[in-house]
Amino acid sequence: MSAAEPVDLTVADLHPALGDPTLTSMNFLNEVSERYPAAVSLAAGRPYEEFFDLAAVHRHLDTFHRHLVDDLGHRPEQARRLLLQYGRTKGIVHHLIARNLAADEGITVDPEDVVVTVGCQEAMFLVLRALRAGPADVLLAVAPTYVGLTGAARLVDLPVWPVAGGSAGVDLADLAAQVHRARAAGLRPRACYLMPDFANPSGLSIDTAHRQRLLDLAAQEDLLLLEDNPYGLFHSDDGPRPPTLKALDTGRRVVYLGSFAKTVLPGARVGYVIADQRVAGPGGRVGPLADQLAMIKSMVTVNTSPIAQAVIGGRLLEHGCSLVAANTRERSAYTRNLRHLVAGLARRFPALPDQPDQPDRPAVRWTVPAGGFFVVVTVPFPVDDALLDRSGRDYGVLWTPMAHFYDDTEPVRALRLSVSAVTPEQIDVGLDRLAALITDEVTRLAG
Amino acid sequence: MSAAEPVDLTVADLHPALGDPTLTSMNFLNEVSERYPAAVSLAAGRPYEEFFDLAAVHRHLDTFHRHLVDDLGHRPEQARRLLLQYGRTKGIVHHLIARNLAADEGITVDPEDVVVTVGCQEAMFLVLRALRAGPADVLLAVAPTYVGLTGAARLVDLPVWPVAGGSAGVDLADLAAQVHRARAAGLRPRACYLMPDFANPSGLSIDTAHRQRLLDLAAQEDLLLLEDNPYGLFHSDDGPRPPTLKALDTGRRVVYLGSFAKTVLPGARVGYVIADQRVAGPGGRVGPLADQLAMIKSMVTVNTSPIAQAVIGGRLLEHGCSLVAANTRERSAYTRNLRHLVAGLARRFPALPDQPDQPDRPAVRWTVPAGGFFVVVTVPFPVDDALLDRSGRDYGVLWTPMAHFYDDTEPVRALRLSVSAVTPEQIDVGLDRLAALITDEVTRLAG
Repeated sequence: MSAAEPVDLTVADLHPALGDPTLTSMNFLNEVSERYPAAVSLAAGRPYEEFFDLAAVHRHLDTFHRHLVDDLGHRPEQARRLLLQYGRTKGIVHHLIARNLAADEGITVDPEDVVVTVGCQEAMFLVLRALRAGPADVLLAVAPTYVGLTGAARLVDLPVWPVAGGSAGVDLADLAAQVHRARAAGLRPRACYLMPDFANPSGLSIDTAHRQRLLDLAAQEDLLLLEDNPYGLFHSDDGPRPPTLKALDTGRRVVYLGSFAKTVLPGARVGYVIADQRVAGPGGRVGPLADQLAMIKSMVTVNTSPIAQAVIGGRLLEHGCSLVAANTRERSAYTRNLRHLVAGLARRFPALPDQPDQPDRPAVRWTVPAGGFFVVVTVPFPVDDALLDRSGRDYGVLWTPMAHFYDDTEPVRALRLSVSAVTPEQIDVGLDRLAALITDEVTRLAG
Repeated sequence: MSAAEPVDLTVADLHPALGDPTLTSMNFLNEVSERYPAAVSLAAGRPYEEFFDLAAVHRHLDTFHRHLVDDLGHRPEQARRLLLQYGRTKGIVHHLIARNLAADEGITVDPEDVVVTVGCQEAMFLVLRALRAGPADVLLAVAPTYVGLTGAARLVDLPVWPVAGGSAGVDLADLAAQVHRARAAGLRPRACYLMPDFANPSGLSIDTAHRQRLLDLAAQEDLLLLEDNPYGLFHSDDGPRPPTLKALDTGRRVVYLGSFAKTVLPGARVGYVIADQRVAGPGGRVGPLADQLAMIKSMVTVNTSPIAQAVIGGRLLEHGCSLVAANTRERSAYTRNLRHLVAGLARRFPALPDQPDQPDRPAVRWTVPAGGFFVVVTVPFPVDDALLDRSGRDYGVLWTPMAHFYDDTEPVRALRLSVSAVTPEQIDVGLDRLAALITDEVTRLAG
């Protein structure tokens, strides 16, 4: 800081989240991609944008408007008011979200249990704000954990305790142990957060039998589960998709977090939460947790833009409320890219029989997910932000250090690759550059 | 609660804001207006919707798209990405907001100091989240206070200390006294919140000389001012509009909270904050407070829908970035309504020379604001939610008890009337019904 530069405040005067690595690292990742715009980005988890179309946005808006008038019988001035005036805190496309969940996920939802949010991020934020009542509360989360969850928890002063993921997607013995450990310490584990389908960042999915055991454990331990499902629709054709936790949930154990960013458009910033848990209020009034979340929402964003909701609503209506059907092209692009990436890794890092794995220096390995956007590559050296910066500058390829998804400062020997926003040609170039980086790094460390 | 009704949680398990009157009263006010849809509503602070037009929304979107391509030189795929993909946390219409503030408010702003938010509510929330670092922090706010500010403060566990408004809009002696009182108690007053123009709910404005004295006091006491300005454009033609605090601010004392809900469309849910305060971070890096707010925003809503921003951007572009020009019809409707309401009150409640005021039983009085949406009527009896419910049911007129704008449980003998969402004919009917209620209530209490 130069002596001449005026300063009005310091970060230490502000909320502690602002000095926390979770928030600053998110910033760092954005800055790196701005710093090296010419690099191939295998970092961005953005959806494929080749099919984005502004004309479709206009059409969706009109489709939803016609739905208000023709299907729901609104007078023109009522329809105009719904779209353009202040409105219902819980949203105006809740009925279509209920139909979508019935069609695509086999989830039966009362539309009154839906809160339409400003992206899934606000849904997470509202749930964590509601659940954090005091300093004894903690949140459990399967590690590695989506950064947006950890960041939202920081903003409401809610500690996040990692639960081992293991190869099954969630280690139930560890989950039980963490619950017991928290309770023994006088703390209150409010919920366990996880992405059961093609998790960000691990790429792992949980199989049906294990989902059932997880629900049983949650009932036994009286624990809520926060199920985040942005990628479920993007499975390969190799086998049937397991049902969501919410579809299996008979005891209102699951708060379901939904996103339209990947299945419709990120630019609408529309997500939702299904919160059917029954909450007793003063005077013995009982209503859904959704109503409590809406009260919080009224003081965060008032309501989700009805114009943005109408874009999503129109898209849903144009496809019979099924986003499976609407995403045929996108799904095959992601599946193609995922296979291309995995094959490309196998070609560039063949198994080397003369260099057997050693515990402290494993070979290059990677996950082979059955869908979603992400592959995790394990390498024989620690991967940090400095290496990413060097990768962008000297090698022209960007990726995400897995250390960003762990809530501690231990070195992590892994990086995340995303296939969602690139072409097969870009994957080839990116993998060539990544292979060069890894080879150089191994040589450097051996030398 | 019936014995058969299942319960999963109680409000007492959740964040304390959910049991707080600030949040539940907001809910109550919404419920009352749903319960009596046939009543004339002098309660709603919604903008006049007669000129709302879905075709204009389509046009604004296209106007902004053309601006990206023609004025800013974006390639078609770049423009599409900006509108539909994930994007810049601080927003994409910041340059147009800077032009708008220069044109309409005489405020010079670096676009990098702007954060585009999901309505002004999110702007308030971000600022309060940033400023509340620990339990010693308190916020000062001119009373009566906008409910959305108090609600946002509740969500971040930040106590709100009232500062007397007085007839000048803010009582500077009381402001200084509250600052000293807080500091003497070991607390840290982070800022003082106020609406200098046609405040919600008081209708009061602060004159230019008093604004200058307020800025001097803020400098002397090293205090930030949070200036909220949703109504400034809607002044009558009776005299010049005083400059905003931000226009007078030479010491980066003012965080300016802006809204497009009343000047463009509530349904876009777009607002903004100007935060040019210089913040020193770790390693001596100095940047605007706006960047810190953006880090918080990335964990609350990620970014504001670029589609919604484009609607606002297009409207700005179509009017040379001046919303004064764009709101000629709206402003004359509000001015007409305000005069009609004040004249209607004078006709229905003439001064009664044979019933002189007594301290414990004043006659009916009202404010005469020079603009904005709100008139406060003082009556000779306490005004509470039960009376509002009776007014809706038995008299067919809705209004807002002023008690909702005070952060305590003292009875308040006043109610707020809004002129923004009604016609002169509805004002006549509403005032007839209100006069009947007041007369009956005075008779009942005297009897």
